[in-house]
Amino acid sequence: MDKIKVIGFDADDTLWVNEPYFRETEMKFCELLTNGMSLDEVTKELFKIEIGNIPLYGYGTKAFILSMIETGLKITNGNLPAEKVQAILELGKEQINKPVELIDGVESVLKSLFGRYRLIVATKGDLLDQERKLKKSGLLKYFHHIEVMSDKQESDYEKLIKHLDIEAEEFLMVGNSLKSDILPVLQLGGKAVHVPFHTTWEHEMVEEEEISNSDFQKIEKIEELISCVL
Amino acid sequence: MDKIKVIGFDADDTLWVNEPYFRETEMKFCELLTNGMSLDEVTKELFKIEIGNIPLYGYGTKAFILSMIETGLKITNGNLPAEKVQAILELGKEQINKPVELIDGVESVLKSLFGRYRLIVATKGDLLDQERKLKKSGLLKYFHHIEVMSDKQESDYEKLIKHLDIEAEEFLMVGNSLKSDILPVLQLGGKAVHVPFHTTWEHEMVEEEEISNSDFQKIEKIEELISCVL
Repeated sequence: MDKIKVIGFDADDTLWVNEPYFRETEMKFCELLTNGMSLDEVTKELFKIEIGNIPLYGYGTKAFILSMIETGLKITNGNLPAEKVQAILELGKEQINKPVELIDGVESVLKSLFGRYRLIVATKGDLLDQERKLKKSGLLKYFHHIEVMSDKQESDYEKLIKHLDIEAEEFLMVGNSLKSDILPVLQLGGKAVHVPFHTTWEHEMVEEEEISNSDFQKIEKIEELISCVL
Repeated sequence: MDKIKVIGFDADDTLWVNEPYFRETEMKFCELLTNGMSLDEVTKELFKIEIGNIPLYGYGTKAFILSMIETGLKITNGNLPAEKVQAILELGKEQINKPVELIDGVESVLKSLFGRYRLIVATKGDLLDQERKLKKSGLLKYFHHIEVMSDKQESDYEKLIKHLDIEAEEFLMVGNSLKSDILPVLQLGGKAVHVPFHTTWEHEMVEEEEISNSDFQKIEKIEELISCVL
């Protein structure tokens, strides 16, 4: 993996824990409804509504809160009591205020790479959420800037690379989602390192095939990134 | 105004109409509540809640929808019927889907400046909303990229300028808000052109003083920008 100038890090579940917080909120949301539906059924309905809302709301916690309210209305057949709406708003605010829990090894890796590459955060989350997390995380000093993408498809990475004024082969993306962080970047001729996280949002899942490409590596822990690039 | 390399354009109410849509939704929201409060009282309550939520939700339509729901709960003393919650969600989606109405003269100005300067959109709205509007507007081809800022204070512009790899004096910001587009940029040693729009959100209002600074100009119509920079 040579010629790299910029390393992009996905944020949620690559730098810090995120998905388990969504799952926790989802569980509380389900308890709140207590209408006889199982967690599995509620989750399915919520997922359907979230996916349907992506073109309008995008990703991030605010989109999630709005989709929970919509799901609550739907599965109660329009009888969601006001105090439950209130409770959903509070669940959302609680999630926004969650502490930032760094994934093991992240800081030491950034410290080693800092100064050798331009490091950026490349995320499709909400900008404000991500800036808040970055501040809380203490990692701000390692990054040149945060790049917020409305989605992480090939065309979005194309724009990103153009905006960074580099060639695709000079860009390395590091992240936990094969679908969002790895495949579109490889497709463009960029480089990618996959660090799986134990929980993945259903929307991010793809059939895992063997990727055999000299621009790609899969690692178990973020610390192994060092030996890929130094 | 010489030495300029990058011109940043505010988006909402500088490139296209925005604030009147928020006011229209606010009016419909008020009609929906029909609890005897005047438009003025409802608006005041909503404004208070919106401002209180900025640190958590930031700016943009999703934040606005969540704040409308919270306001609805508050002014009905927690008795907001589910169908009104539904109606608020629909008002929000309706607003997101509004057509993009360009402000007169915008396209011809961009056409004249394109190729002579790096043009960017610098906005604190929601990235997805702004990308959608830019696509619908047909203006995409003139801009190098969209820069979404979590806020538009001096420190945010400082980050932006660093990220653009230019000096402050090489940056010109064009926008309708003295508070967000003009004052912080001048403070940093950048240049600014103010094009007022007929409606301004209360949060964006500042006491208008005479600014006497050779880096600043106030114009009536965006077309006059040309004579400031060419």
